[in-house]
Amino acid sequence: MNNLINRQVRLRSRPSAIPQADNFEITEVPVPELVEGQVLVRNVFLSVEPAMRGWLSTVGNYSEPVPLGGVMRSFTAGRVLASRDPAVPVGAWVTGMFGWQDYALVVASDIQRQIVERDLPLSTALGVLGINGVTAHYGLLQIGRPREGETVVVSTAAGSVGSCVGQIAKLKGCRTIGITGGETKRRLCLDQFGFDAAVDYKAADFENRLAEVCAGGVDIYYDNTAGPISDAVMTHLNRGARVIICGTASIASWDPIPLGPRVERHLLVKRAQMQGFVIFDHPEHYEGAYRDLAQWIREGHLSYLEDIQVGIEHAPGAIAGLYRGDNLGKRLIRIAED
Amino acid sequence: MNNLINRQVRLRSRPSAIPQADNFEITEVPVPELVEGQVLVRNVFLSVEPAMRGWLSTVGNYSEPVPLGGVMRSFTAGRVLASRDPAVPVGAWVTGMFGWQDYALVVASDIQRQIVERDLPLSTALGVLGINGVTAHYGLLQIGRPREGETVVVSTAAGSVGSCVGQIAKLKGCRTIGITGGETKRRLCLDQFGFDAAVDYKAADFENRLAEVCAGGVDIYYDNTAGPISDAVMTHLNRGARVIICGTASIASWDPIPLGPRVERHLLVKRAQMQGFVIFDHPEHYEGAYRDLAQWIREGHLSYLEDIQVGIEHAPGAIAGLYRGDNLGKRLIRIAED
Repeated sequence: MNNLINRQVRLRSRPSAIPQADNFEITEVPVPELVEGQVLVRNVFLSVEPAMRGWLSTVGNYSEPVPLGGVMRSFTAGRVLASRDPAVPVGAWVTGMFGWQDYALVVASDIQRQIVERDLPLSTALGVLGINGVTAHYGLLQIGRPREGETVVVSTAAGSVGSCVGQIAKLKGCRTIGITGGETKRRLCLDQFGFDAAVDYKAADFENRLAEVCAGGVDIYYDNTAGPISDAVMTHLNRGARVIICGTASIASWDPIPLGPRVERHLLVKRAQMQGFVIFDHPEHYEGAYRDLAQWIREGHLSYLEDIQVGIEHAPGAIAGLYRGDNLGKRLIRIAED
Repeated sequence: MNNLINRQVRLRSRPSAIPQADNFEITEVPVPELVEGQVLVRNVFLSVEPAMRGWLSTVGNYSEPVPLGGVMRSFTAGRVLASRDPAVPVGAWVTGMFGWQDYALVVASDIQRQIVERDLPLSTALGVLGINGVTAHYGLLQIGRPREGETVVVSTAAGSVGSCVGQIAKLKGCRTIGITGGETKRRLCLDQFGFDAAVDYKAADFENRLAEVCAGGVDIYYDNTAGPISDAVMTHLNRGARVIICGTASIASWDPIPLGPRVERHLLVKRAQMQGFVIFDHPEHYEGAYRDLAQWIREGHLSYLEDIQVGIEHAPGAIAGLYRGDNLGKRLIRIAED
């Protein structure tokens, strides 16, 4: 269309563990003409998520793996540049699974959401006011069911989901404990995200420090990591505890399944629950969550941090950086002005 | 009282793993006179439970450990021999935590239940119509929430809880798969307890056989064992599966916590739940469960098997025998005629 060139980040080779820059390549193709019913979206922000590791893996997961040679699957936020569907106006701001590319030719049903909160930065539509915020909201409130005065522990507490979980738990009257890596992120948890306590899992005395701040026991553990961090938290569960399995960021490979301390006795003695979830199963929950999240942001109750890299050439190496913990806050790639 | 001699099985030394006969001793004391408000129960059946291992352990559990020198804690069924409480008539048949002994001096609030189903054998009050049946009923129906057509897998399927779980699941229209040890118990699962399939976990091809009968996936796993049996079942969970943690019979010691394949990825990808419970938390559920269970027994839908040893001298070695799998069905010690 109008000689537009579409830069696309495609999967060149399948990663065996954490996806690296050289698993991808950037190619260019012309944007085709729209046919009846199609909509052309100009992507402005590309999202980078820990979950992308799973989307690229052929090991059992909740979605089909991105095919070799395919455009990398990703949430994006952008603007409707042209439309041959009367229901989708040119100029609308939208999010969807539009991939790591400049332009996406889609149909109306591909659009996840028309963004109505234009008083807030567009980038929030991919983070705190996007799938990360909704994930935190659903997992904590629907599965965790926090009650005032309970203690909530969150792993990857300085991350886009974890920081949101901590702040929502605080809004619900809970005591919040964040687990994160390094002193910078630990300070961020305390100073920006208002955790009552924060513990650095990389510190030599991690288990002792965790035991100190968990002396009253843990009622809810929102788990984004699995691994030794979770093993340590599990020993502090209170009776009736809820463990929300949202991600497994600390495990480099699930093939073969790594060993860890068995959880059955904790679950039995503490009458505790572990529950996994995938937010895409719960679209009926999105609108209510967007409403809450937008209100909390506007009222100053929900702080967020973004790590925005400019230029599509940053995309291929962006997942590996996440797993190294390079970023502070939600990682995004800006590929155009909004 | 009237020169009655009370034989009692007392804890002589604390077991480090599975309780053995020489951890106990049998002593004799006279039965004291009743004072106002007391009730004297003549125990007829003593119960033997896998959970007794935990009741004897000082490692974190859901009840205080039996003290050294104390009478072994146990459910019993017996008859009120004398009463100085007008609310408890002489001759009533009762159950309670009256211990491994001939006689128990108790108060009305110690009585767990007055047995009303005297058309059924007294022994059932400690098994299928007692805590085992109620445990199966609560765990399967309240936590498992079985739906018609779902597949339910049970470990220790020929045991007193497991056999009851399988039959209740069948009554609810589920396909039932039992896991048990040895060909005799496997046949029992199929022939007496009506499982649709039964697999011997001691057989060399256990994992392959399990995979065959679980080809359609597992919706509910009622887990009485933990360990390698559970590890094998976890790989077959269906989306939305519920794993009910009722016991950990296959684990000889939890100190230190043994290693096993991590469960987080199964729970996440399958949106599955693991939930531990202890039946003593749910007394409000008992009466409804007794009603259902008695009706199903009378209608011939709920078969049960008992392993009754006669004489209190069998009690000390009875727990070790359970863990060796010596028994077929609910193990009881009869110490008097009813």
